[in-house]
Amino acid sequence: MKIAILGAGMVGATLGRRFAGAGHEVFFGVPEPAEHEDKKAFAAVGTVGEAARAAEIILLAVPFGSIGDAIERCGDLAGKILVDCTNPLRMADGKLGLTLGFDDSAAEKVAALAPGARVVKCFNQTGFDNMANPAFAGGRAVQFVCGDDSEARETVANLAGEIGFDAVDAGELKTARLLEPFAMLWIHLAMTTGLGRDFAFAILRR
Amino acid sequence: MKIAILGAGMVGATLGRRFAGAGHEVFFGVPEPAEHEDKKAFAAVGTVGEAARAAEIILLAVPFGSIGDAIERCGDLAGKILVDCTNPLRMADGKLGLTLGFDDSAAEKVAALAPGARVVKCFNQTGFDNMANPAFAGGRAVQFVCGDDSEARETVANLAGEIGFDAVDAGELKTARLLEPFAMLWIHLAMTTGLGRDFAFAILRR
Repeated sequence: MKIAILGAGMVGATLGRRFAGAGHEVFFGVPEPAEHEDKKAFAAVGTVGEAARAAEIILLAVPFGSIGDAIERCGDLAGKILVDCTNPLRMADGKLGLTLGFDDSAAEKVAALAPGARVVKCFNQTGFDNMANPAFAGGRAVQFVCGDDSEARETVANLAGEIGFDAVDAGELKTARLLEPFAMLWIHLAMTTGLGRDFAFAILRR
Repeated sequence: MKIAILGAGMVGATLGRRFAGAGHEVFFGVPEPAEHEDKKAFAAVGTVGEAARAAEIILLAVPFGSIGDAIERCGDLAGKILVDCTNPLRMADGKLGLTLGFDDSAAEKVAALAPGARVVKCFNQTGFDNMANPAFAGGRAVQFVCGDDSEARETVANLAGEIGFDAVDAGELKTARLLEPFAMLWIHLAMTTGLGRDFAFAILRR
């Protein structure tokens, strides 16, 4: 598939490398394409608009504060699958937290900003290092997928499965209200407990 | 240890059986002790006040709406370990959700209602069936423990470990703001997806 990745931070760069490794055509969309020469070995690099136009699936891997700007630069998103990888983080009293509560979510903000797009929440729930390698001795890291378009959800779940995740369909887009706190729990544990970044959540089945 | 369990619903009854099985002295505190003759095979049964007075550790396993009443019936809680197993659930539009957001939690409400008590959040994060048997072929179900008193946290983590959980210290009581949505995610997945109740969250370590 043709996959645009908006943002080339740790998450975006890691996912781009993984998708390219899985045989997909990756196009990074960034404000300053000249600064990302290193990615040309495995992907195309261009502006946000160029990347978005070229792709069927667009990953929003920018900081939450930049979603409005990034979506505006995309142009027409009608029918495209837009995967929201963001978390509505904020610093308060020197600690990371979420800005949106149980009656809203970053994913729903994205959907409101991108009319016509088939918005899916995914790839927001664990660290980039786990995205680089979701396989543990004890099993695969879980990655939930939610969205209101079941076909788009399945497409993104397949992508997550291809790069090694245990991809689980979590239903409608509103579930992001739970998946964003779930991500925050991973961040909290990684930053403040002995678990560090070397752990992932998994699902055990009977 | 002497453990009081306030509430004898599925969670309270299951945990009581497990703690008794692990060699602890269990005392159920319920509004109508006469209705719980079946539990006398493995535990004592009395009023909430009797159970609370008899125990060093008190589990609050009542519905969230009853925490004020249950705590009032306990009498003096100074120095006791009070384990909050509740989730602030509500029904809205026919769906379960949480009533408290990122700036508050059921655990903090409990702490405000029980001055002097060493409040710990635990046993709220998975179904009673997983509490009955946290061991899966692939590993042990995780159970996070948070609270502001590290000794109380360790005591409760040891209890969770004794009945088979992978008990993980998640830090201060405020972490309940993340553990309650985590519980809600389990409930959501159990009720609305193919996973059903036969799954649990686990932690994978490198």
